[in-house]
Amino acid sequence: MQTKTVRVGALPVGGDSPLTIQSMWKKPLTGLSDELVAGVNGLAALGCDILRFAVPDMKSAEVLGELAGRVSIPLVADIHFDHRLALRCMDFPIAKVRINPGNIGAKWKVEDLVRKALDKNVPIRVGVNHGSLPGHLAKEKDGAEAMLRAAEEEIGVLESLGFGNIIISLKSSDTESTVRANRLFAGRFDYPLHIGVTEAGPLIPGVVRSTLAFSSLLRDGIGNTLRVSLSDTPEAEVITAREILAALGMRVKGIRLVSCPRCGRAGFDVHGFLALAQNRLMSLDKNLTVAVMGCAVNGPGEARHADIGITGAGNKVMIFKHGELARTVAEENALEVFFAELEAL
Amino acid sequence: MQTKTVRVGALPVGGDSPLTIQSMWKKPLTGLSDELVAGVNGLAALGCDILRFAVPDMKSAEVLGELAGRVSIPLVADIHFDHRLALRCMDFPIAKVRINPGNIGAKWKVEDLVRKALDKNVPIRVGVNHGSLPGHLAKEKDGAEAMLRAAEEEIGVLESLGFGNIIISLKSSDTESTVRANRLFAGRFDYPLHIGVTEAGPLIPGVVRSTLAFSSLLRDGIGNTLRVSLSDTPEAEVITAREILAALGMRVKGIRLVSCPRCGRAGFDVHGFLALAQNRLMSLDKNLTVAVMGCAVNGPGEARHADIGITGAGNKVMIFKHGELARTVAEENALEVFFAELEAL
Repeated sequence: MQTKTVRVGALPVGGDSPLTIQSMWKKPLTGLSDELVAGVNGLAALGCDILRFAVPDMKSAEVLGELAGRVSIPLVADIHFDHRLALRCMDFPIAKVRINPGNIGAKWKVEDLVRKALDKNVPIRVGVNHGSLPGHLAKEKDGAEAMLRAAEEEIGVLESLGFGNIIISLKSSDTESTVRANRLFAGRFDYPLHIGVTEAGPLIPGVVRSTLAFSSLLRDGIGNTLRVSLSDTPEAEVITAREILAALGMRVKGIRLVSCPRCGRAGFDVHGFLALAQNRLMSLDKNLTVAVMGCAVNGPGEARHADIGITGAGNKVMIFKHGELARTVAEENALEVFFAELEAL
Repeated sequence: MQTKTVRVGALPVGGDSPLTIQSMWKKPLTGLSDELVAGVNGLAALGCDILRFAVPDMKSAEVLGELAGRVSIPLVADIHFDHRLALRCMDFPIAKVRINPGNIGAKWKVEDLVRKALDKNVPIRVGVNHGSLPGHLAKEKDGAEAMLRAAEEEIGVLESLGFGNIIISLKSSDTESTVRANRLFAGRFDYPLHIGVTEAGPLIPGVVRSTLAFSSLLRDGIGNTLRVSLSDTPEAEVITAREILAALGMRVKGIRLVSCPRCGRAGFDVHGFLALAQNRLMSLDKNLTVAVMGCAVNGPGEARHADIGITGAGNKVMIFKHGELARTVAEENALEVFFAELEAL
């Protein structure tokens, strides 16, 4: 579906622009530290294009504002109830504000907020969640219809104030409702869609539900920016979004990792190797297939299909490059030699 | 697709029987221990219907044979190269043997093996993997066609010996090839299909790829028994398979877990609570939606949609049952009170 283009900082979302990946910072913004800056940059290296922060108080707004000047990716302020927090955030180079006019209260507060967003050219993301619908919609039986109506009402408020710099999301913890609400919305509006399953659960249920919802929507051309929401780290959210796009053939950049499940045959400690190597591999700016295999049954075969592969063989480890055996090394040197060979590709 | 029914121990696979979930034990079978028995029973409680073990030597065959008499779910022996291991396994109540006639060697060895499988009424699963195709097919460009031809050849050998008690799998680390190979096979044969993406990768890529492949196939009615293959624990494999079936509406039994991603607002330690509670929750034989939420924004809303919900509120934790606030407790008592309330439902 063709949508308008909305700029989140320098990054275009919607229209013909590439799909972007978002995540949300999980800790309180108690102060600006090198650790915080490094954490955000690490997420950016993994493929996080936009990062959101909860701003529940004025201190958080100040820290976020300062942080925005220190990192390269656009930062978003997530605000509920108190419009003064949004006003303060917009004194800084904040790239987007997520706020639902419906939970801000008095009309003059919404007007103040919208005036400043117009002035500063900051887009607003209206985030409709099935779990926090306004009272008159909360009892509606059809969750997708209720979310659509909530979105219409929120957009109505913003449009009546001359504001159209909007991104929208409609999220439920139920995959089917999420897919249906987004389809209904995309059929009626041309605002860019931020897609996600909310409260998707711990890692495994969350990855399963997000994969199902995203694949349905993205195959229909619905969705401009993606947030995988997991009861897990932001790194896991970004890797999941990347992997969904890669598996759908919508992201060609980056490492494709193939690895064996390990069984009673395996000599090489595949799980241990991956635990050490995964985030480092995923942060490489290379376009390669990497195979990590335990034993002689499927190992050499898969390792040969890959650009670079590592496989156990007895108490040694073999490294293949483009189908050719490149090195045979002792297991304790495997990580170091593997990354050296990979960097050389 | 309607297939024949094959019995794996007492469990029917194919025909009209329900979809079953499999996993594979990841450690060597060095000896029979209470820990091993408890591990298998724990997997069964999580929803593992069939469990496979690599049998690379005679000692493993003996241990597996003994174990089969001590647990309630059917056990499968995975054997390569050496037909004597399969012969020995079939002296015990092993429910299935996974073996590819093509890598057994001399014809008389295959004949010996098939004679004993007929005699003992043990089904054989032929497992075709893209990474270990026979030499004359390994260079075929179209991976799905190559896998189909390998399956045809293996089945041909078994059928020529009068053996039809067969389950088949066609697995690639590439989702598309896996889906296409299984579709081609289901169009030509009526043997039950064990579906899976092989070498699917570490947890996140593996869950994404398995969800995409399984949803495509299962929605077409293809697939009778499922193995999610992950470079992670068998527990993670079983939970992933369950969650895929649940998200597709193909498994209604069990706990549906909804939980928030946690953000800078959250007071309640959702990740920590889930780390302690997840496997215990997933092993309960109850059909309920459980919500674990961090804060006041979406928490009470989602917790109210659930059969039982827990949500942070200040430094207390609230427990909701069927939309009603049931208890408010201190965070340190949350786990204990929550399970007590859940057991009472």
